[in-house]
Amino acid sequence: MPKPKLFIPGPVDISPTTYEAMCSPIIGHRGKDFETLYASIQPGLQKIAGTERPVFLSTSSAWGVMEGAIRNLVQKKVLNLCCGAFSDKWFDVSLRCGKEAEKIQAEWGQPIDPDLVRAKLREGGFDTVTLVHNETSTGVLNPLSDIATVVKEFDDVLLVVDTVSSFSALPIPTDEIGVDVLLAGVQKAMALPPGLSVFVVSERALQRAETTHDRGYYFDFLEFEKNHKKDNTPSTPSISLLYALESMVASIMEEGLEKRFQRHSETNAQVHKWVKENGFELFAPDGFRSKTLTAVANNRDIDVPAFIKAVRERHNFLINGGYGKIKGKTFRISNMGNETTLTMDDLLCALSEVLPEFT
Amino acid sequence: MPKPKLFIPGPVDISPTTYEAMCSPIIGHRGKDFETLYASIQPGLQKIAGTERPVFLSTSSAWGVMEGAIRNLVQKKVLNLCCGAFSDKWFDVSLRCGKEAEKIQAEWGQPIDPDLVRAKLREGGFDTVTLVHNETSTGVLNPLSDIATVVKEFDDVLLVVDTVSSFSALPIPTDEIGVDVLLAGVQKAMALPPGLSVFVVSERALQRAETTHDRGYYFDFLEFEKNHKKDNTPSTPSISLLYALESMVASIMEEGLEKRFQRHSETNAQVHKWVKENGFELFAPDGFRSKTLTAVANNRDIDVPAFIKAVRERHNFLINGGYGKIKGKTFRISNMGNETTLTMDDLLCALSEVLPEFT
Repeated sequence: MPKPKLFIPGPVDISPTTYEAMCSPIIGHRGKDFETLYASIQPGLQKIAGTERPVFLSTSSAWGVMEGAIRNLVQKKVLNLCCGAFSDKWFDVSLRCGKEAEKIQAEWGQPIDPDLVRAKLREGGFDTVTLVHNETSTGVLNPLSDIATVVKEFDDVLLVVDTVSSFSALPIPTDEIGVDVLLAGVQKAMALPPGLSVFVVSERALQRAETTHDRGYYFDFLEFEKNHKKDNTPSTPSISLLYALESMVASIMEEGLEKRFQRHSETNAQVHKWVKENGFELFAPDGFRSKTLTAVANNRDIDVPAFIKAVRERHNFLINGGYGKIKGKTFRISNMGNETTLTMDDLLCALSEVLPEFT
Repeated sequence: MPKPKLFIPGPVDISPTTYEAMCSPIIGHRGKDFETLYASIQPGLQKIAGTERPVFLSTSSAWGVMEGAIRNLVQKKVLNLCCGAFSDKWFDVSLRCGKEAEKIQAEWGQPIDPDLVRAKLREGGFDTVTLVHNETSTGVLNPLSDIATVVKEFDDVLLVVDTVSSFSALPIPTDEIGVDVLLAGVQKAMALPPGLSVFVVSERALQRAETTHDRGYYFDFLEFEKNHKKDNTPSTPSISLLYALESMVASIMEEGLEKRFQRHSETNAQVHKWVKENGFELFAPDGFRSKTLTAVANNRDIDVPAFIKAVRERHNFLINGGYGKIKGKTFRISNMGNETTLTMDDLLCALSEVLPEFT
């Protein structure tokens, strides 16, 4: 079977331009050529990340940095805000790092309630909060600014935010709202092959890290800061993916961030329209819906795996059949990355063509 | 300036075949297509790694797995065998993970003496030993089998071996000599772009990990084992590099391991011959010399950076000017990866052409 065009919520389709960039000749990473490459990516990445701080590059999936944030910052107790597969798992990972952790658990499909965060933090003893901005498993976009405002009410509590599937698709004013660690993998809205993560660390988070024991080396935030000053990374980086990132950041700057946000909004609205017109419901509530993917509630009780298989076989498009415990009860359609209203039309027409056989 | 052909000790030049493989269409990593890709790489990798155990794939540089081994295995105290920049750093990383650690420090350029390892282990209290097989900074090939034999004399002491710059270039009988963790990055002798590491974990090392606290998630050996059983990885892997790895493993199997080892031996001997004919000395002692790179002692006291610059400018070849505290006192020439006697001849002729101006 040929490889399908991906409309799953990451990884997504890679453009020919990106592939071409990936094939630039490899260079040594301890020399001028690499430093030039590294430095050239910073200004664009900073704009996308809404920060004047450096944007560090980690050769790992986002989970590496998610664990790294726990190891670097948690000295007392972390509060993990859980509302889906990835945010739930962060609580588990906190415990596996030997840290004290508590969680707020929202039902899958629901966002985190900032008032509950305030109430929990008032109990005291916390020094770190983790949030998944756009919970990829449920299609929920959490109220980042409202939660950041709440966390700010508490001195010495740091906010760590995973934006894996929102980064570059909507505004994230990191510095303005006071996010202490912002992190993302590049294989979702950035439409690069997986294997690289980007992250921002606030001054006060770096200060916290300085007094945290057992941070290790590979994800030590202070090592990233130290090497950044030399336009470099602590360990051998994924150089081919850095070339791809350089190319993608340039193309995002060329498109313009506002236009990029608008494009994601429009393609997302297209999917929502299809969902409603076809008698399905959106899994996430109004006001808290992801702009990069849509989790569709399977209220028509179709055979999701068979539907997806038919779409792939007849049209060579791949959508996703739901994640973890809501597999089959939902299915997911991604509009992240390089998709346009035209390419989304192609997909939605294909879905419409196949759907009647399954209802 | 055009990008030079790399004769530095990793990363090294990438073949067009590898680049082509890297550009295969991206697939989701939680589906059949990915499982097929993952499984197809195993048999070849196991042969290269000299093991019947699975070969795990970590989306990180080798340092990630080097740190991971410490976090997974050290419960009492680790003995780090140090004889160059990378092996020395492993001791530092052990401490940064909050572990008790001691070291044996050989002079840079000298190998580890197995008798000293025995004497140290007899002091008691150790449960883990780390060794860098081929110390890339000094061109020293350590006596792996002899050290493994010594470690075996001690019950419940595990041996962790980094083979970053020897993996696939010479026989490493992992199972036979009883290495508990064998690890390597793919950007050295495997000649792939950096960003991926491969590693093998023995049954008894997995058993140790089961009772080790605070292993975390990203490098948790038990997670790798669990996911391997589903032909998968714990976190989103670097899919493009897996395609590249699949292609490289196939090409290594086609070349034949014995022939590959022989090729590295021959190209290495070519470099040694050039070194001697040109009045230089080898930095590593006879019997302990790397087969994949040569650290040349700068006994003629040439201006190494200027020499390297001239070779690059006039011939577009890049060699390395020495690492860390032996920068300039040594320079390094790599013959690892896809190089042949013909391509090495090109380099050595270029070096010969430029050298007279610097002596």
